[in-house]
Amino acid sequence: MTQPSPGGGKGTFITLEGGEGAGKSTHIRFLAEHLRARGVDVLTTREPGGAPGAELIRKLLVEGPPDAWDSTTEALLMFAARRDHLERTIRPALARGQWVISDRFADSSRAYQGYGHGVAHERIETLYRLAVGDFAPDLTIILDLPVATGLARAAARHGVEDRFERFGPAFHERVREGFRAIANAEPQRCALIDADAPIEAVRARVLQVVTERLGIG
Amino acid sequence: MTQPSPGGGKGTFITLEGGEGAGKSTHIRFLAEHLRARGVDVLTTREPGGAPGAELIRKLLVEGPPDAWDSTTEALLMFAARRDHLERTIRPALARGQWVISDRFADSSRAYQGYGHGVAHERIETLYRLAVGDFAPDLTIILDLPVATGLARAAARHGVEDRFERFGPAFHERVREGFRAIANAEPQRCALIDADAPIEAVRARVLQVVTERLGIG
Repeated sequence: MTQPSPGGGKGTFITLEGGEGAGKSTHIRFLAEHLRARGVDVLTTREPGGAPGAELIRKLLVEGPPDAWDSTTEALLMFAARRDHLERTIRPALARGQWVISDRFADSSRAYQGYGHGVAHERIETLYRLAVGDFAPDLTIILDLPVATGLARAAARHGVEDRFERFGPAFHERVREGFRAIANAEPQRCALIDADAPIEAVRARVLQVVTERLGIG
Repeated sequence: MTQPSPGGGKGTFITLEGGEGAGKSTHIRFLAEHLRARGVDVLTTREPGGAPGAELIRKLLVEGPPDAWDSTTEALLMFAARRDHLERTIRPALARGQWVISDRFADSSRAYQGYGHGVAHERIETLYRLAVGDFAPDLTIILDLPVATGLARAAARHGVEDRFERFGPAFHERVREGFRAIANAEPQRCALIDADAPIEAVRARVLQVVTERLGIG
């Protein structure tokens, strides 16, 4: 793309969002392969984590019982990890001109801590301004699928549930509704993709969105 | 004391603040002994930490090199730990009617992340409102002493410097000025005590302040 990223770097920042088992990591791999084959310098990363300090915070967040943290503490930890990820990994890569593709970013806090746990929208946005400022992804792809399907996929994948998978189906329904609401509220940044479809169809749709929105294909 | 704590509990919340080597833990021990001898149910605690989750965050904050975190990330982690400490330890103890004495609380973020690292005052106060709300200590005792004296005492105490001790004298001068400014701005909550004095004199002054301000002696 020719216009500068909202992050102010030369690169492009794409985030993939969605509930458990939505296929984010699979489609990030497909997208990165596709872009690299076209000569794009791609960095793939993930949240919570994506930088050495942020990975230490990730351990605190994904391990332990569901009540390990109250929801506001969880939001503070998520934004601490995000700030570290942004300052130490994402911004430097964008400044070098790389395309950065992240498995989750701030929309996950909006969906999980906000819609899922009920942390007030304004509190999440206050943390966003404090930790992230006016930086934002160039494109956010939200993979949408029924909660039961996603949780079954996630369980089949790694056997042991992480802390977020243990919150129960009603929580994950609120998270799904949150992601759909975000896509609805920010259609210029976000694309909602039906992930309850054959993997090749989802892959094609992701590549189509990237081509249309960012002008590379 | 007969009036309710600003925290809404039945107990009383006292914080001791100050730079490295100011003698906070020694004077907390003296104060707790003094109060217990008068039949007060006292809980002593410390920050960062003071609850199981907060202690895990503490490890991330006090270990590693000075540049392990940027200053905003450090502030987010401090308030995450503080929120956990408040919700899991301080509020329940105050609700039971205990007196809680904490080695550091939010004034340390104001002094260290704010004055020391230059995080804007309004950002610290935004985090305070988000994590702590309108809760505040009943009394804050700030132990003041020259930076060189404090750092020498801290080094003699444990041999190995922690991450904050490694920030250098200019940082610690700003921290000291921060604590003095806080005491000046909130004289009703705070008492500044000269800690560059014989230990018995400091002890007597701490007990005098508690007696005068909280009506127990």
